Amino acid sequence: MAKGPPIKYNIHFNPDNVDILAEPGDNLMETAIAAGVHINASCGGAGVCGTCKVFINKGEVESTRTKWVTDREYNKGIRQACQCRISSDLVVDILPESRMEKAVLSREKKGIATEATIPLVTGWRFNPPVKKYFIGLPKPTLEDNTGDLTRLLRGLKQQYRLDSISVDFELLPKLAQALRDGDWQVTVTTLLDSTSGIKIINVEPGDTRAKHYSLAFDIGTTAVRGQLLDLNRGKLLAQSIDYNKQISYGEDVISRIVQSQKAGGLKKLQRAVVTTINGMIKEMLGEAKAEVGDISYMVIAANSVMVHLLLGLDPKYLRLSPYVPTLNATPLAKANHLGIELGRHVYLYALPLVASYVGGDIVAGILGTGIYQRKAVSLYIDIGTNGEMVIGNSDWMVTASCSAGPTFEGGGIKHGMIAAPGAIEGSEINPLDLEPEVTTINDEEPKGICGSGLINTVAALLKAGIITQNGRFNTTLSTKRLRKGDDGYEYVLAWASETQIGKDIVITAVDIDNLIRSKAAMYAGCQTLVKSVGATCSDMERVVIAGTFGCNIDIENAITIGLLPDLPRNRFIFIGNGSLLGARLTSFSEDLLRDGQRIAGMMTNIELSENVDFMDNYMAALFLPHTHAEVFPSVRIGKGRGD
Amino acid sequence: MAKGPPIKYNIHFNPDNVDILAEPGDNLMETAIAAGVHINASCGGAGVCGTCKVFINKGEVESTRTKWVTDREYNKGIRQACQCRISSDLVVDILPESRMEKAVLSREKKGIATEATIPLVTGWRFNPPVKKYFIGLPKPTLEDNTGDLTRLLRGLKQQYRLDSISVDFELLPKLAQALRDGDWQVTVTTLLDSTSGIKIINVEPGDTRAKHYSLAFDIGTTAVRGQLLDLNRGKLLAQSIDYNKQISYGEDVISRIVQSQKAGGLKKLQRAVVTTINGMIKEMLGEAKAEVGDISYMVIAANSVMVHLLLGLDPKYLRLSPYVPTLNATPLAKANHLGIELGRHVYLYALPLVASYVGGDIVAGILGTGIYQRKAVSLYIDIGTNGEMVIGNSDWMVTASCSAGPTFEGGGIKHGMIAAPGAIEGSEINPLDLEPEVTTINDEEPKGICGSGLINTVAALLKAGIITQNGRFNTTLSTKRLRKGDDGYEYVLAWASETQIGKDIVITAVDIDNLIRSKAAMYAGCQTLVKSVGATCSDMERVVIAGTFGCNIDIENAITIGLLPDLPRNRFIFIGNGSLLGARLTSFSEDLLRDGQRIAGMMTNIELSENVDFMDNYMAALFLPHTHAEVFPSVRIGKGRGD
Repeated sequence: MAKGPPIKYNIHFNPDNVDILAEPGDNLMETAIAAGVHINASCGGAGVCGTCKVFINKGEVESTRTKWVTDREYNKGIRQACQCRISSDLVVDILPESRMEKAVLSREKKGIATEATIPLVTGWRFNPPVKKYFIGLPKPTLEDNTGDLTRLLRGLKQQYRLDSISVDFELLPKLAQALRDGDWQVTVTTLLDSTSGIKIINVEPGDTRAKHYSLAFDIGTTAVRGQLLDLNRGKLLAQSIDYNKQISYGEDVISRIVQSQKAGGLKKLQRAVVTTINGMIKEMLGEAKAEVGDISYMVIAANSVMVHLLLGLDPKYLRLSPYVPTLNATPLAKANHLGIELGRHVYLYALPLVASYVGGDIVAGILGTGIYQRKAVSLYIDIGTNGEMVIGNSDWMVTASCSAGPTFEGGGIKHGMIAAPGAIEGSEINPLDLEPEVTTINDEEPKGICGSGLINTVAALLKAGIITQNGRFNTTLSTKRLRKGDDGYEYVLAWASETQIGKDIVITAVDIDNLIRSKAAMYAGCQTLVKSVGATCSDMERVVIAGTFGCNIDIENAITIGLLPDLPRNRFIFIGNGSLLGARLTSFSEDLLRDGQRIAGMMTNIELSENVDFMDNYMAALFLPHTHAEVFPSVRIGKGRGD
Repeated sequence: MAKGPPIKYNIHFNPDNVDILAEPGDNLMETAIAAGVHINASCGGAGVCGTCKVFINKGEVESTRTKWVTDREYNKGIRQACQCRISSDLVVDILPESRMEKAVLSREKKGIATEATIPLVTGWRFNPPVKKYFIGLPKPTLEDNTGDLTRLLRGLKQQYRLDSISVDFELLPKLAQALRDGDWQVTVTTLLDSTSGIKIINVEPGDTRAKHYSLAFDIGTTAVRGQLLDLNRGKLLAQSIDYNKQISYGEDVISRIVQSQKAGGLKKLQRAVVTTINGMIKEMLGEAKAEVGDISYMVIAANSVMVHLLLGLDPKYLRLSPYVPTLNATPLAKANHLGIELGRHVYLYALPLVASYVGGDIVAGILGTGIYQRKAVSLYIDIGTNGEMVIGNSDWMVTASCSAGPTFEGGGIKHGMIAAPGAIEGSEINPLDLEPEVTTINDEEPKGICGSGLINTVAALLKAGIITQNGRFNTTLSTKRLRKGDDGYEYVLAWASETQIGKDIVITAVDIDNLIRSKAAMYAGCQTLVKSVGATCSDMERVVIAGTFGCNIDIENAITIGLLPDLPRNRFIFIGNGSLLGARLTSFSEDLLRDGQRIAGMMTNIELSENVDFMDNYMAALFLPHTHAEVFPSVRIGKGRGD
C-alpha cells in the first residue's frame, strides 16, 4: 500500500501572528522555536519551571499536566508549551507573562552611555590589532616575474618594514585577480596573532583604508550587546542589543549546559547565538549604512559557558568538579567558520577566560576599569545569576564566582520576571498604613517583579517592619495586604484589578527566602574573597559595580538588605557593561589586547563552591542585612511602626 | 500546459561496461567523464587532436565531423566523442587507441626503485616537520583547575621545552574529551610552519606514537605517484600510481589552463586530481593495513600548474606574459579543506615554485639530488611536454623551461601514444634490407609508438640512412616500407595484420619534424642556460636526467638525435622520479624542508620564450644531431647503405 503524504497541521501563534506547519506529535515549544516565536522557558523545556504557559485558543493538544498549571488555568485551556504534543490545527496565544519583550532592550539601548563611560583605563595607544596598509607594487616584467605573493611580501617589507608575516590560505584564490583589478595598487589587511605573529588576512584592489570597521560583542546568557566601530577613528558607528536566542533552551548557564548534552544540543545552542549575532550585525550595518565587507575584525567578551557554546566547544566539564574549561586563552577563529555572516577573512578574538565561572566578560571588565593599573586595591562585582567578583591591583588579582541563583533576573520568584515593561522595579511602603506604592518599567500596569524591584521591595518591607531581619513576615500586623497564600505568608503588591495579568501580584515568604539566599551568596563571596587576601571590605578603595542589572539597583536598598558592603557611598562606581567596554577597547589597541591576556594570566581563582570559609560567611549573611549588625553600621531597620 | 519529466537516455560504455543516464544534447565526452569512463583527449575536448575516437555501436548521435575522422571511419560509425551530442540511447565502444591502460602504470609501480635511489643529498638529520609527543599531565584539582589547553601547553613546556606554540582552532572541540579519555595521558602532534612557528594540530588519547605516517606525492600532469611513509623509521610502507584524472580535460598544462577558464572548470579540475589522490590514499592504506587516522602529514611536489589547480588557485596568469604564478612559497593548507580525505588535522605542504613553468617538482628534484650542496656544477634535465632544466651548484642556480610539445608523451604523432602496453618502445633497423625489428611494452602486438620508442626509431632511421641529417626521408631507397602517405612520405614500422589496431603503424615525415622540433627545444634550452652562465655543456660535472620518461630513454640514441649533449656517458645519472624523492625527503626532515625553500629562493629563472639566444640555438638544433657537427663528435651517421 502506498503511504500518503504526511499530515501537517497549521499552528498560528498570537500575538506574534506567525504561522508554521507541524507534524502530529510535534512538541509545541519546539515548534514555537522553529517559528521564531519566543516563549519563556527557564528550565529549558523540562516542565519544571512553569514559565512557558500558553492558552490553546483553538484546536487540540495532548499534554502532560504538572503542578504548575492550576485547576482553574487548566479548565480555561492554559497549558505549558513544553508539555504539549500537537494533534490538530492550533491557534495558540502566548500569555503576557510568558512573553519576552524587546522594548526593554530598546530602552536600554538608548541608555548605553558608550562614549560617556569614564575612561578608567589609561596610557594605551590607539593601535588596532587589525590594520590596513595601502601599497603600490612594481608591475611584473619578464625580468621580474616572481609570484604575486612574493611580490606583495617584498613590497610590504620594503615599504612598511613588515617581516616574517604569514598568509591566510583562504585569501590566495583571489590574490592574483585582486592585484590585477587594482592595477598593482592594493589594500592589505593584517592581523596580530599573539602566538604566531602577523598574518595577512585580506587583499583588496585599490585603496579601501577608509572603510575599516570592527565589531565588539558582549555575549551574555540573557542578552547580547554589540557595537560596530570605526577602526580609523575609534568611533562608535552603531549598536544593537537583543535577547540571546539560546534563552528558549533555558535561562541560566546550567540549563544551557544540560541542553548541550542532548543529541545535537551543542549545535543548536551554537546556531541560536550565531543567529542572534547575525541579526544584530545586519541591523548595525543598516543603521551605519555600511557594507559587511568593511568589517575587518570581531572581538567578543563572554562568560565561559557562552564562549564554549559560541566556539562549538563542549561545556560539560565546566560544571563538573574541578570545573575545568577547555581553554583559557582562545586561538583566533574564523568568524564565518562559526556561521557568523562576515567576510571570509574576518577572525574572531575572544577575551581569555580565567576559570569555568570567571569568563572573558570579567577580564574585559577589569581591563576596561583599569583596576590592574593601580596600586590601590579595588573590588569588582558583577551581579547576576552567576555572581562574579574580583579583588586586586596592579600586582595581584584574586577572583571568585558564586551561584546566586536566578533571583536577580526574576527567576524562582512567584511573580518574578526579567526587567521588561510592566515589571515592578520600585517599591515604597508607607510605614503608617503599610500600603505600597510601586513603579513599573514603562509605567505599564504591573505584570510581575524584576530583580531590582525585588531588592527595593524587600528593603521597603524591612524598613516598614513588615518583615523582620531574619526575613519572616511580622504576622501580628493587621493589613489586608499581608495574608496566607499557597506558599505560606505573602504580601500583595498589586491587586488583580490593577495588573495586566488579572491576578494579585504578591511577594511570598519563599520569594524573600530566595532573595536572602542570593544576596547572601553574593555578599559572602565578596567577603571570602576579601578575607582570602587578609583584607576587609573597608580596605577597598573602589567598589566597581558592573553589569546592566547592577546599573539599575538602588545602592541604599542594596546595602539595606546586605547585598553590598556598607561603605562610604562615594567609593561605589557603576560602569554599566564592563564586558562590552573591554571588548571594544581590545579591538582598538594591541596594548590592551595584551593587557587582557596578562590580566587573565595574573588572576588566581578561588573555588567557593567547596570552600569552608565561604559556607560560614554565607550562613552569617542569611539575615537582613547581616547576622553581625556591626558590619552594616549605616543601616537602620524599622520596628514595625505600622502595628 | 504541464511540462513532462525530462527525457533521459541510457548510455552504455564498452569495454568498461558502465551505464549512465544523459539528457538529449549532452556532450558524449562529458557524459563519459561523468560516468568515470576515460577517453583520451589531448586537446581537452576542442576537437582538434582526434584522440577521442569512439565507435557508436547502437543508437544515434549528432556530431560535427572534423578532418580527424576519415571517410572509412565515418561510414563505419566512428566519431570523436568530444564532437557528439546525444540524441538516443547509446552503446558506445571506446577504441583501443583512445583508451588509457593502467597496466603500464602497474608495471612502472613495480619498477619504482625508491629505496635504491642513490642518496645524493647528504648531511641531513631525520627530523620530520610533524612530530608526535607523548605526555602525561597532572590531573586537575580544585587548587589547579586551569583550562585544559593551558594545562597541556604548560606540560609541553615543562617536559619538552616547547614554547610559544600556537594551536589549531579545529582541534579544540575534541580536546576536553581526548584528555579525559586518555586519563590525562595523550599524544600531541605538532607541525612546523616556517613563518609562524610550531603549531599543535592534534591531541589523541593515550600513546599513538607508533602510528605516525606521512604521504609524499608527485602530482604530474599525466600521472600521479604517491608513497605512504613511516615517520618513525623513514620507511616506505606502500606506494601507488595512477593517471591524473584531469587527463580527461586535456593532456598538457595549457589545455588544463584553458579548461580552468570555463565556468566551473577550476572546480572540476581540482576535484579530478583530488579524486585521483583519494583513490591512491585508500589503496596505500589497504596495502599497508593502516588507518587514515595514522596519517599526520602530506607533502606534494608538482609543476606550477598542478600546484595551482590542486590548491584551487586560478592558473590564468601562468600562461600570460610575463608568466606570474600566484605564489612561490605555499602556505600550509588543510588537506581536507581541499577535499583530500584525511584527518581534519592533516596539513598539506607543497614544495615552493620558482616560476610559472619551473615548479615544486624541479625544486624537489634539485633537493633530492643534492646538486645545491656541491661546488661542482651540475645540469639537471627533466624531459617532458614541458622540459625543465637547471644548472648550478651550492652558490648559484639558474633555471629555464621550454615547451617541447607533447611529442615525448606520444602526442602530435600520427600513431603516437603514451607508454602503455602495445606501445613500440624499441626499434632497430637492419641497414641491409631496411626492415625494422620493434619491441613493445608488455610484448603485446603494436598499437602505436610512445615517446622513447620515437627517439629510438628516429635514431635507427638515421643510422640506417633512411632519413638524412635534416630529417628528410631518403626517397631514393627502394623498400616497400618507405612510401607516400597522406602526410607526405612515411616509413611502415608494422603492417596492419601485425597490429592491434588493424592499420599500418607508420612514422611520417611530419612526425619526424615534430620530434626534431621537440628535441631542438630541449637541447637549445640546455645550451642557452649553460651559455647564460658563461659555460659550455662540457663543463658539466654531472648531467642528472629526471622523470620517468627520462628513465626509459636510450642514452646513445638520445645523443644520436641530439636531444642530450655529447658528453662522456659516465657523467649521466638517471634518478627516476626526482620530484617524489624530494617530496619524501621533505616529509622526513626539517633541514631538507628549509633547504627546499632555500633552493627555490636561490634559483634565477630565465624566460626562454622571448629570448633571442634561445631562438638562434633552437634553429641550429633543427638538425640530426646538430647543425654544428663538431659538438657531437661521438655520433656517427650511416650513409644509406641499404640502397
